[in-house]
Amino acid sequence: MTYGYNGKILRVDLSTGVIRIEEHDEYFYRTYMGGATLGAYYLLKEQKAGVDPFNLENIMVIAPSIVTGTPAPGFSRYAIVSKSPLTGAIADTQAGGFWGPELKFAGYDAIVIKGKAKNPVYLFIQDGEVKIKKAAHLWGKTTGEVEQAIHKEYSDSRVRVLSIGCAGENLVRFANVLSDCKHAAGRLGMGAVMGSKNLKAIAVRGHQKTRMKDEETVRRWARWFSKNFMDNPVNSGLHNLGTGEILLGMNADGQLPTRNFQTGFFERAEGISAETMHKEIFQRSEGCYACPVKCKKVVEAKEPYSIDATYGGPEYETIAALGSNCAIDDIVAVAKANELCNKYGLDTISTGAVIAFAMECYEKGIITKKDTEGMDLRFGNGKAMINLIEMIAKREGIGDILAEGSKRAARKFGKGTERFAVHVKGEELAMHDGRVKGMVGFGYAVSPIGADHVVVEHDTDFDFNAPDIFIEQMKSLGLLKRCKTIGMDHQKMRMFCYLQNHFSFMDSLCLCVFAFAPVRTFKMSHLVEISSAVTGWELSLWEMMKLGERRVNMFKAFNVREGFTVADDWLPPRMFEPIQSGLRKGSSFSKDELRKMRQLYYKMQNWDDEGRPTQAKLIELDLEWVVDELAETSKLR
Amino acid sequence: MTYGYNGKILRVDLSTGVIRIEEHDEYFYRTYMGGATLGAYYLLKEQKAGVDPFNLENIMVIAPSIVTGTPAPGFSRYAIVSKSPLTGAIADTQAGGFWGPELKFAGYDAIVIKGKAKNPVYLFIQDGEVKIKKAAHLWGKTTGEVEQAIHKEYSDSRVRVLSIGCAGENLVRFANVLSDCKHAAGRLGMGAVMGSKNLKAIAVRGHQKTRMKDEETVRRWARWFSKNFMDNPVNSGLHNLGTGEILLGMNADGQLPTRNFQTGFFERAEGISAETMHKEIFQRSEGCYACPVKCKKVVEAKEPYSIDATYGGPEYETIAALGSNCAIDDIVAVAKANELCNKYGLDTISTGAVIAFAMECYEKGIITKKDTEGMDLRFGNGKAMINLIEMIAKREGIGDILAEGSKRAARKFGKGTERFAVHVKGEELAMHDGRVKGMVGFGYAVSPIGADHVVVEHDTDFDFNAPDIFIEQMKSLGLLKRCKTIGMDHQKMRMFCYLQNHFSFMDSLCLCVFAFAPVRTFKMSHLVEISSAVTGWELSLWEMMKLGERRVNMFKAFNVREGFTVADDWLPPRMFEPIQSGLRKGSSFSKDELRKMRQLYYKMQNWDDEGRPTQAKLIELDLEWVVDELAETSKLR
Repeated sequence: MTYGYNGKILRVDLSTGVIRIEEHDEYFYRTYMGGATLGAYYLLKEQKAGVDPFNLENIMVIAPSIVTGTPAPGFSRYAIVSKSPLTGAIADTQAGGFWGPELKFAGYDAIVIKGKAKNPVYLFIQDGEVKIKKAAHLWGKTTGEVEQAIHKEYSDSRVRVLSIGCAGENLVRFANVLSDCKHAAGRLGMGAVMGSKNLKAIAVRGHQKTRMKDEETVRRWARWFSKNFMDNPVNSGLHNLGTGEILLGMNADGQLPTRNFQTGFFERAEGISAETMHKEIFQRSEGCYACPVKCKKVVEAKEPYSIDATYGGPEYETIAALGSNCAIDDIVAVAKANELCNKYGLDTISTGAVIAFAMECYEKGIITKKDTEGMDLRFGNGKAMINLIEMIAKREGIGDILAEGSKRAARKFGKGTERFAVHVKGEELAMHDGRVKGMVGFGYAVSPIGADHVVVEHDTDFDFNAPDIFIEQMKSLGLLKRCKTIGMDHQKMRMFCYLQNHFSFMDSLCLCVFAFAPVRTFKMSHLVEISSAVTGWELSLWEMMKLGERRVNMFKAFNVREGFTVADDWLPPRMFEPIQSGLRKGSSFSKDELRKMRQLYYKMQNWDDEGRPTQAKLIELDLEWVVDELAETSKLR
Repeated sequence: MTYGYNGKILRVDLSTGVIRIEEHDEYFYRTYMGGATLGAYYLLKEQKAGVDPFNLENIMVIAPSIVTGTPAPGFSRYAIVSKSPLTGAIADTQAGGFWGPELKFAGYDAIVIKGKAKNPVYLFIQDGEVKIKKAAHLWGKTTGEVEQAIHKEYSDSRVRVLSIGCAGENLVRFANVLSDCKHAAGRLGMGAVMGSKNLKAIAVRGHQKTRMKDEETVRRWARWFSKNFMDNPVNSGLHNLGTGEILLGMNADGQLPTRNFQTGFFERAEGISAETMHKEIFQRSEGCYACPVKCKKVVEAKEPYSIDATYGGPEYETIAALGSNCAIDDIVAVAKANELCNKYGLDTISTGAVIAFAMECYEKGIITKKDTEGMDLRFGNGKAMINLIEMIAKREGIGDILAEGSKRAARKFGKGTERFAVHVKGEELAMHDGRVKGMVGFGYAVSPIGADHVVVEHDTDFDFNAPDIFIEQMKSLGLLKRCKTIGMDHQKMRMFCYLQNHFSFMDSLCLCVFAFAPVRTFKMSHLVEISSAVTGWELSLWEMMKLGERRVNMFKAFNVREGFTVADDWLPPRMFEPIQSGLRKGSSFSKDELRKMRQLYYKMQNWDDEGRPTQAKLIELDLEWVVDELAETSKLR
């Protein structure tokens, strides 16, 4: 009954150096499937409440899914799950590229890491074999240097390297993890967790194919996607310009985060547009494993900044965070910032957000040149922004405070700076304005992981303005009617709940939305069909939606155990202030509406008034053991 | 946006004689689809609370579904929905055969009937045209006579006739509706509702095909079913012996309802087995529209009773109700009883149950020969049983009391006879013992319509003893593990909830379980695929499960409006008494367990502690209007 030859989970205890392989039956794989759902299983089952994220007892799970590494486009991601040093809540952050498939090729479905190595180490995994290797020579090195060194050590440039830079070593709370130096498992400080474990990198190489029950069907779907991936006029720009393609449109619509979310209109947005980037520094397009969309835009420059193409190029989130949100209009500066973040292992969104926060504090006179060692931290200063990135990664000067993230930095600065700290549960907002996209704003508030950019997937304000393409896809979910485009209402709340579970199942399988969005005739059911062909199971959209709901409830259960309450499902002050200019000038989120909608949301989820999953809901999702596991510490009724 | 040419609902007001055609958009059809879901829409929307079921204001909806009448086997049923005179709750009772498809061929998706004709009438519908015709000459006639007369009147033996017999005219509270004199929309007194409206029959004839978006796919599935319908060893007996095939097995297992459910073992079961029936009186097999299974076994006899093959033959439920449950071991007597019930329009289950109830009262000395006009009402007296059927249908003597159903008869008899009245909400139990099949027993208790035999579909005790066939089908529903076979537990409750919604979606589409069960390789998803091909919609199992849940919640909302409470979700005293003999001797349902499981069930459904759908659940199911409609009278929170 085990799930084929690759039904193996690698357990590594860095404290003892013990490595073992865990096997599970088909029931386990079909219930959790992969990604953060599988990760949350270990965190709920084996981790005690209240563990400090930097304590050796914090568990870190790195997991692709049962369908990762098949030739279907977008089936290429992996998730990292742990307790976040940024939020104290559960973390789920995902990356594309090639590392996830390679782990599968090497024979593993996931790696569960506990403990802390005495000295820096890295893991080397090749075709099932696993070694804990010394990494003293790699400590302090950039992600690019680490990759080079490992490639050289094994004389194999096809070894896929996931690593941290100095930011992770220095426990910057939003340090990230990179594979191939450019695919970031970006958010929530997973790089710092690796750093706290003295784990510099995980290198993998494998020659097994991901097991496919019906390979021909999977290949047929792959061919179909390759043929059709450009036929959606709404999203085909992804291929041409990358995710940055939406930037100018969002600016025109008055919802481009600008000057630390003070406004949604950046008067010099042209300077950081995907079009400008394409014209001035674009070098080539790249994609992830088996994906024809190739939405990654690699850049290169000599002047005024030298940018190494090894580190890819900035995506929309990065451009907005380090560009418009800091009022910086120079795409080369933004691209340089991106390169540094990828070198040092820093999340570009939180980095941009924390710098924008510092800039607002500076402009409002709360921090001064004395604090910045003479730096002029006004909005728009690209050089200062780049300088701050170095300081944050190395925890120098004011960078040491900003390295703690906006929430903690605001506490440190005091003087009402909490008003300018734009985060939920400690995670800085992604670059979509919740005051314009109501469902995104609401999603930020109630998301168990924080104001993550994956919440943006719930954005149907935007999609419901689009042609009927997306509408048709929604209908399979039982969402038959168009909703109002602005704000929230009851009808939209059902959509929110259904989409939450839908995207959550995609996240459980570590699928990429960008691989499918460009296909006009893409249907929700296609993902189920491909997954059925891979596994040989007769999966259904029902089963997958329940998988998605299971993940959300496991996240919630983790947070309840950690003491999170209804009060944590809330938006930062900025979201209740009016947008200051542009088309959406005056828009703000209503506290009353948020409170009302949050109650309805909890009730729709079958959670209690405090947002805690009920025992009945957990049993219904086949998570009765969670009730038992949490019995002592939890407040579950 | 309307659903093709047959997106028409026929509205008939018998009081005024006004006939009109109502059209709805695609959203309406995709939300309600058909059957009792569509019927409940009208009852919730247009009927006031507290209407007497025999009042002219009681609405009656007769509805096949959007997929009825396609060549796929089992897509042939229709539902009748109204307020039940037996329970006062919502009624949903379904029949197979040919009438449902014929209504579609005549151009209608449903008939909504209000009011009461001054004198007896019948409806004649042909290719869209509708007439209210006088029926004085048909009043008092048997269903067979009515059919003959109508066939003769139009010189067309292919007119499909749905009619009531004298039981319906006499407002016997469990009078049924028959089409083709043998396909019974059997339960909950829909014949009496027709009788109360002076509506004797509805005759339909049509030449349109049910619209199919992708006819070739539907035909391909039909061929696939025809080819495979006998390959399931568990259920292929349906074709050979009919539903009665299970009788001896159930008796051996100690769960054949016997002597008014006093025991589960009938020592002379051989005499009423399907095998005996086949040997002695079997005439031919018949099926429903487009179905190869042909599970209907037509019988014929001369001695000792003359049995007219026009009225089909007894099914399992009928054989058990009028046979073992009355301790009658003579299949010819049972078949004669079946013929009389079909002639007079009586539900065979309630008829058998109410006679068994009377027999127990008689044996216990509570009713005597004085009450029975000299009849010896001891268990096992086939002649008395047949005699009582005549008396019930004609409301003669003690038959007039029994015609009110067990609940009311027990009240009338008094002297503790409530203990022998085996019903839920007034509906007599179907012929499956809830003390052995825990999920069925639980289903009887909480079913909004009563202890119906459709609840038996939830019986996974039985199926989970079977080979892995059914297990594989369950997995698409996210039910990955075998459950314990006896009693209820948490794991089984999730199965109950999921299966409830699954069978409820099949009921919304008016599908037959017996058409699919015999196919070993049948998958849940096939029904969705066929339905998608018919409608051209990209349906999903998720959407269909939500449709099923919508139906259950609409039923519940109706009952809440009528004043039903948690106390009505309960089992009759007999279910808490031990089974007296046979393999399951001593088994009984535990009150504590029922109370506990009921609470868990309500919570899993996202209902309140009183079993009322929450506002959040109704909104989630796109039923916000139900909250509004019920605002004045309801107790919904």
